[in-house]
Amino acid sequence: MSKIYVVGIGPGAYEQMTIQAAQALKDSDVIIGYTVYVDLVKEHFAGKEFLTTPMTKETQRCRMAFEEAAKGKSVSMICSGDAGVYGMAGLMYEVGKDYPEIPVEVLPGVTAATAGAAVLGAPLIHDFCLISLSDLLTPWEKIEARLLHASEADFVICLYNPSSRKRKDYLQKACDLMLRYKPEDTVCATVVNIGRDGQDSQVMTLKELRDTAVDMFTTVFIGNSQTKNIDGRMVTPRGYKDV
Amino acid sequence: MSKIYVVGIGPGAYEQMTIQAAQALKDSDVIIGYTVYVDLVKEHFAGKEFLTTPMTKETQRCRMAFEEAAKGKSVSMICSGDAGVYGMAGLMYEVGKDYPEIPVEVLPGVTAATAGAAVLGAPLIHDFCLISLSDLLTPWEKIEARLLHASEADFVICLYNPSSRKRKDYLQKACDLMLRYKPEDTVCATVVNIGRDGQDSQVMTLKELRDTAVDMFTTVFIGNSQTKNIDGRMVTPRGYKDV
Repeated sequence: MSKIYVVGIGPGAYEQMTIQAAQALKDSDVIIGYTVYVDLVKEHFAGKEFLTTPMTKETQRCRMAFEEAAKGKSVSMICSGDAGVYGMAGLMYEVGKDYPEIPVEVLPGVTAATAGAAVLGAPLIHDFCLISLSDLLTPWEKIEARLLHASEADFVICLYNPSSRKRKDYLQKACDLMLRYKPEDTVCATVVNIGRDGQDSQVMTLKELRDTAVDMFTTVFIGNSQTKNIDGRMVTPRGYKDV
Repeated sequence: MSKIYVVGIGPGAYEQMTIQAAQALKDSDVIIGYTVYVDLVKEHFAGKEFLTTPMTKETQRCRMAFEEAAKGKSVSMICSGDAGVYGMAGLMYEVGKDYPEIPVEVLPGVTAATAGAAVLGAPLIHDFCLISLSDLLTPWEKIEARLLHASEADFVICLYNPSSRKRKDYLQKACDLMLRYKPEDTVCATVVNIGRDGQDSQVMTLKELRDTAVDMFTTVFIGNSQTKNIDGRMVTPRGYKDV
């Protein structure tokens, strides 16, 4: 019986993949993923069978993986970043209930939060939250409550999916909520196209972030009360006490 | 002028390091780190100069890296997991203010949260917080507030440093706080020695977690209201709406 690897390929660059992720793709007959991610790895794994489905067809993509494995092929289902962070790992286990004989193994990867943090300096050194601004599967009220609680508790906050065509003003709405507890001069940053062509970053204040345009390839960082701008780097200290 | 790489080596296993992290270590003259982490990589990078300092001498370790680089050597400062998550990346930029001519680059790695998540199933698929229970540099009141706010906002929570010799009852205290907002049957889990010899995991309820003994090599996961136990796997759905 074949096995399915659910593989986080990291933010984009081949070199940011783990050694075991690259090995799993090398050992697979079939590599399945969203078109954009398959295009990111294709050149490094010549001769493999590549299968893709569009972004909204996630359940169908999972089922495809199990059907290919049922034919005796070894399969890698790839996700950008880490497959377990807003990725396909959970859905694979849910769909996998229909295929109890096919083993699934998740191989972790570098998620956009920590890859983006490395570009910026060290914003996530202390307690932090990841919050997705996408309200496709989550009621906005839930997202709003999380933004408020995370801000009140002085977490560093990293926002995924800060914008899309239908949600142009969501980052602004999120900033207005965070500004209830975080001061206007809180150190913030955006990183775009992490580990890919066109990678770029910008450090700014929360007040400036509120009026910054972002797209779906942007990851947003909001500091805690201790986060500093050190020569253009966003750096959060290890704690609140000077030791 | 030489360069310093601040390298997250992943949870422990060589294969969970990224390709670029392994390359940086290969290209370095000197590899510096806490003794335990240097021992994890030593066999894979024969012929390198290895320098270590004990756990509490972090500032000294950073200064050592800059001093070695100032001699013209290329240096890798290694951390377990990701150097930017409770790691040395921030301190390197702070100490680096005294060495403005030496460039520092952070190479991200797989942090214990996502590596542990991959062992367990998919607990971190939706919004989550990382909270360290160590009150060495952070007032306990701050940690307490974060546990309460994160629980009230229904975040998945991942706890780092859940215990130490001096803080034997901290996980119990943390569970009592989380139980104010999260039900007793919330799906939780512990993972110990992620990616290392003796890796082990256990899925349980929040009530059971409260009375579970953990050590400093344990990472703890507390689900949100939607997290399920699917055949012993801890799985959080992608949202709250059935799509």
